[in-house]
Amino acid sequence: MKALVYHGPGTKAWEEVPDPTIVDATDVVVQVDTTTICGTDLHILKGDVPAVQEGRILGHEGVGTIVEVGSAVNRLAVGDRVIISCVSSCGSCSYCQRRLPSHCLHDEGASGVGWIFGHLINGTQAEYVRVPFAENSLHKLPEGVSDEAGLMLSDILPTGFEIGVRNGRVKPGDVVAVIGSGPVGLSAIMTSGLYGASRIIAIDLDDNRLELARTFGATDTVNNGREGWRDEVMAMTDGLGVDTSMEAVGVPATFAAAIDLVRPGGTVANLGVHGAAVELPIQDLWIKDIAITTGLVSATTTPMLLKLVAQGKLHPEQFVTHRFRLGEFMDAYDTFGRAAETKAMKMAISR
Amino acid sequence: MKALVYHGPGTKAWEEVPDPTIVDATDVVVQVDTTTICGTDLHILKGDVPAVQEGRILGHEGVGTIVEVGSAVNRLAVGDRVIISCVSSCGSCSYCQRRLPSHCLHDEGASGVGWIFGHLINGTQAEYVRVPFAENSLHKLPEGVSDEAGLMLSDILPTGFEIGVRNGRVKPGDVVAVIGSGPVGLSAIMTSGLYGASRIIAIDLDDNRLELARTFGATDTVNNGREGWRDEVMAMTDGLGVDTSMEAVGVPATFAAAIDLVRPGGTVANLGVHGAAVELPIQDLWIKDIAITTGLVSATTTPMLLKLVAQGKLHPEQFVTHRFRLGEFMDAYDTFGRAAETKAMKMAISR
Repeated sequence: MKALVYHGPGTKAWEEVPDPTIVDATDVVVQVDTTTICGTDLHILKGDVPAVQEGRILGHEGVGTIVEVGSAVNRLAVGDRVIISCVSSCGSCSYCQRRLPSHCLHDEGASGVGWIFGHLINGTQAEYVRVPFAENSLHKLPEGVSDEAGLMLSDILPTGFEIGVRNGRVKPGDVVAVIGSGPVGLSAIMTSGLYGASRIIAIDLDDNRLELARTFGATDTVNNGREGWRDEVMAMTDGLGVDTSMEAVGVPATFAAAIDLVRPGGTVANLGVHGAAVELPIQDLWIKDIAITTGLVSATTTPMLLKLVAQGKLHPEQFVTHRFRLGEFMDAYDTFGRAAETKAMKMAISR
Repeated sequence: MKALVYHGPGTKAWEEVPDPTIVDATDVVVQVDTTTICGTDLHILKGDVPAVQEGRILGHEGVGTIVEVGSAVNRLAVGDRVIISCVSSCGSCSYCQRRLPSHCLHDEGASGVGWIFGHLINGTQAEYVRVPFAENSLHKLPEGVSDEAGLMLSDILPTGFEIGVRNGRVKPGDVVAVIGSGPVGLSAIMTSGLYGASRIIAIDLDDNRLELARTFGATDTVNNGREGWRDEVMAMTDGLGVDTSMEAVGVPATFAAAIDLVRPGGTVANLGVHGAAVELPIQDLWIKDIAITTGLVSATTTPMLLKLVAQGKLHPEQFVTHRFRLGEFMDAYDTFGRAAETKAMKMAISR
């Protein structure tokens, strides 16, 4: 088959590789019908994730069709259309039992299971992919849900919901600020309404993204490159700050802003992937009754989100801004890598 | 009357001042039967809390007897024995309604109500004290509960419970580490059992305090001045860290240790009063699914804790290591200020 292979920092190729096969009885092999590129893939290509070895097939998102099942797989069959979850789950370790499979302790890679596709095992940017612990890691796509909608449930929509909205303890009537309107920030914006937020403020430096954020459910937008932007946000609260602020960028300045915007008794939910330490003004925060939360998606809410998509209550297909064929993978990376210029949000790369 | 008056950094005196009187209809005046000194009072005396002005009577803890009630006070009467809560509550602002009176917005001092005794209004280190919003800020002492037991419910026991145990989300079976075995750390240790912690690890540099911690409910003790102390703690978990770590010191090194000891999915509850920013290793934490919580006691759990004290299920009187008369206040401060040497935990300073 053909696959997108990592050959060390800065180097990748769409090339011929051996077809995947069943290794364990709980595996299935999925034909990839649609896949996409995550910001994390760009980090890997920069060499920021040293656990990814040369020769690894990238990608941890996808929708496909089962073409082969292991002998222990009962609830899935050849021909099933499935969402491939970015997080694999052995289902039996203490973390999987606590519904935190992102910290699954089963030793598939060197450091447990959890996020392994395109990281510790071969991923979804390929014609076919082996899926371990298939019954815990795949979700059947109901009739009427498109591949592109399902694709957004592999990673970004549960990430925004679990790590932003749920960790951020959004409650009815809350005022929520989401800093960063990339795919993950927009996922948090799209799902903040599920808990009845009264006001969802999108904050970004790019007016195009802010305009887009409104179509995802933002009630207000603030460009944090503008003078006085903090006052604009405060004026949307009772002057005391937002109930929940979400950091969906991953740099010290936006983390500091998220901390600064939250009211006493509120929550700062960190969604950003950070590369450096930040300064925490604990001398001001010790008295403030706040919680700061972090996390990697466990994708335990994917079935719930899928139900809402099937009912037409969420429309994640609107993330897709660009479409390619699998053979055009190099172009797709190029377009995604220049997102500011191309206005790329999510790619749909299909067979 | 006589009172302990702050005269600027480093200076205090036990001196004659005017008796307090009813100002608002919701006030009462309490004769102080027993009061104590908090670490915060030492901070104030160092000049670390500039909101405290010269001439202010210090102290925010106490048990006493009501000697005068305002015209709007119905549920309290002259002669009632009461605990004076360190946090005042107007009862009607949005924060009081949300049961976060530590952030009460009523404008008694310049910055709302909340913690005002010995801070924005005159405090309890005196023969008498005016208590505003008395019905929300006093708790009647049941028969059989001693003044010394009640005194610990003014501040430290609810602080340890609310900011350590409850914010720290301690659950049945959890392994809890409490860094710092001062009064607040010991309060967290004493109340961690209320949520069924399986193991409560006291961590301190002082072996005397660690020995004391066992009498407050610590199941294990670790001296963090010893080589290999972190391995000792990890060996008490499944190697992945504690479910909840509590920081009850207030310096960067112990904050870093609390962050380091927590397992994926766990909580770091900050109890310490910090004077400087800390470095937060968000580059390691973004993926770890943790919560970091902060807070000032709201003392909303005082009635519940008082019930357990009255039933003999908690014995907070054991905090009292030294006893003085009101006239001996200067000696009491001297003894408390040299706690390492005098082994002082809490003072009981009585009329």
